[in-house]
Amino acid sequence: MIADLVKKTRSCRRFNENRKITMDSLKQLVDLGRLSASAANRQPLKYILSCAPETNNKIFPCIGWAAYLKDWKGPEKGERPAAYIVLLGDTTISNEFWCDHGISGQSILLGATEMGLGGCFIGAVNKDRLRKELNIAPAFTIMLIIALGEPAEKIIIESTVDTNGNIRYWHDENGTHHVPKRPLDEVILDTYNGS
Amino acid sequence: MIADLVKKTRSCRRFNENRKITMDSLKQLVDLGRLSASAANRQPLKYILSCAPETNNKIFPCIGWAAYLKDWKGPEKGERPAAYIVLLGDTTISNEFWCDHGISGQSILLGATEMGLGGCFIGAVNKDRLRKELNIAPAFTIMLIIALGEPAEKIIIESTVDTNGNIRYWHDENGTHHVPKRPLDEVILDTYNGS
Repeated sequence: MIADLVKKTRSCRRFNENRKITMDSLKQLVDLGRLSASAANRQPLKYILSCAPETNNKIFPCIGWAAYLKDWKGPEKGERPAAYIVLLGDTTISNEFWCDHGISGQSILLGATEMGLGGCFIGAVNKDRLRKELNIAPAFTIMLIIALGEPAEKIIIESTVDTNGNIRYWHDENGTHHVPKRPLDEVILDTYNGS
Repeated sequence: MIADLVKKTRSCRRFNENRKITMDSLKQLVDLGRLSASAANRQPLKYILSCAPETNNKIFPCIGWAAYLKDWKGPEKGERPAAYIVLLGDTTISNEFWCDHGISGQSILLGATEMGLGGCFIGAVNKDRLRKELNIAPAFTIMLIIALGEPAEKIIIESTVDTNGNIRYWHDENGTHHVPKRPLDEVILDTYNGS
């Protein structure tokens, strides 16, 4: 059931770093992105895959982790991602990427959940540094990073947003990660129902 | 298996219009979008849902169908979408929607496939007209439309792109829709594999 998979696919930021992810698994995930919709079928996305500890160590410091958690600077050694997929836009194909990276990325993250993995879309990327670390040519726009690993944190969806409209996630005293989601009737603006 | 679902989730543009879609089904689909990741968890997306023929008839002419098919002006009466979900960005929450509409939309389309439906992301929208037809307030940015219905066309993935790099989809003499997808090794730019 896709509903279960979507619910289980939380943005996860702490992992069991010892659980390795194979390159074959990463390729299977990228294949899900490849087969997803693309604006005008242009398919301008390209992917860099890393499950190598030394490359992971180059990617990790390029990431801004969980902006709302002021006392948490990101996952510690041992709980960092075991793999990364970097999504790029190939400007030799198009300068217009629309929301292709969202479409592809969601397929990838759902696939990761099905594999018993978890992950997180990361938009807060030091792109200059990442470009240098991975020798990414200027023709490729860095769209986002997907961090992947075996989840090592508990995440709970809070089905209400407080009266101030605060949507900031938080860690409780046990380290459980809470994520407020706006309720369904709040996100539905209008309905037109046939007779 | 998510891989089967992703493969089956083709951009479908001809439907059995007589197969109605209930408002309850549309709400289930939006709930998948609601529970998907959102940049900084801001959740600025709002949704307008229509399964009412009279409203569908207002939305339909706002859509540009399949730009590459010059001899095909869009689905005929009887093969038009039975429902639409309009994705909006609520500027009172944020002016930055990142690729949230792609993330949410992919969850919605995968859910539709699981329901035996099909659909299509539509970015080619006459936004001024749609805004007028549905009385969409200026505070909401029109992001995209998802058209939905019971598929009434055969779609085949072509696993090669021709030597000219042509990614245009086409209809063959039987009306089957062919979609060239770039092969996996072409979209993977670099791999870093641990020893």
